[in-house]
Amino acid sequence: MLPTELATRSGSYPLRRAVEADLAAIVELLAADQLGSARDSADDLGPYAAALRAIDTDPAQQLLVATDDAGAVVATMQLTLIPGLARRGALRMQIEAVRVQEAHRSSGLGGAMMRWAIDDSRRRGCALVQLTSDKSRTDAHRFYQRLGFVPSHEGFKLLL
Amino acid sequence: MLPTELATRSGSYPLRRAVEADLAAIVELLAADQLGSARDSADDLGPYAAALRAIDTDPAQQLLVATDDAGAVVATMQLTLIPGLARRGALRMQIEAVRVQEAHRSSGLGGAMMRWAIDDSRRRGCALVQLTSDKSRTDAHRFYQRLGFVPSHEGFKLLL
Repeated sequence: MLPTELATRSGSYPLRRAVEADLAAIVELLAADQLGSARDSADDLGPYAAALRAIDTDPAQQLLVATDDAGAVVATMQLTLIPGLARRGALRMQIEAVRVQEAHRSSGLGGAMMRWAIDDSRRRGCALVQLTSDKSRTDAHRFYQRLGFVPSHEGFKLLL
Repeated sequence: MLPTELATRSGSYPLRRAVEADLAAIVELLAADQLGSARDSADDLGPYAAALRAIDTDPAQQLLVATDDAGAVVATMQLTLIPGLARRGALRMQIEAVRVQEAHRSSGLGGAMMRWAIDDSRRRGCALVQLTSDKSRTDAHRFYQRLGFVPSHEGFKLLL
């Protein structure tokens, strides 16, 4: 249930749904990493605001932010519920766009966010949680494997 | 737009949204392959019918079937529209649970289905199409790469 508090070694971080006032900070997180820097920019928030409205009108979507003591957005992730027939009609949770600000990475905030996402998936009756991660993000792969994720699949993308 | 006709070397296959009467045939397709055989069975369609209702009440979901001349279901796939902030608020299409009955694989039906899915993604304004495929399905990987998909990501699953 949201909002909640994520306990970490550096204290607790509130976790809540993103609102429009968070957009610039979220986009900066997306643009801060090597892969996102060419793809995202907070110069024009228009397309991002439209995407947030699409997320907010779809009950299967949750775009979340964690904030620091001062209320600044320091991490984000998106959760998507996907019903499907495979695995006896299993509901699955997909996690996309996980980003944690560099300065907050050593505190365990990323792990606390992922564990909350896994707990939320269980509460919603999901049989599995899935995500993909660019093959160049080898640190992230170790992080997901420590949380119990298995790299069993090849992830394909086709840009249109 | 659906229903439509998929043109292949063995003639055309109607493609349409799945309905409850298709469930046993779809589940048999899911159970027919090596990976699905332990996970899916048409003995009890109850959980599958519940999943189909969840799919039908979510406008982001399309569960599709292709049928042969006699109207029998010979292929299936599920498409999910996912709005997101990354890549300047890109809408993405995710393809899951692609299955083509063995006897219809050499006709080009799988490729025709995937090309329809890619065209549908373009019509809906998606910036990318994504899917994951079990690492043991090496034939499928070549098939997706021939269609232009790039295996850029590691696909992680966590069973709950």
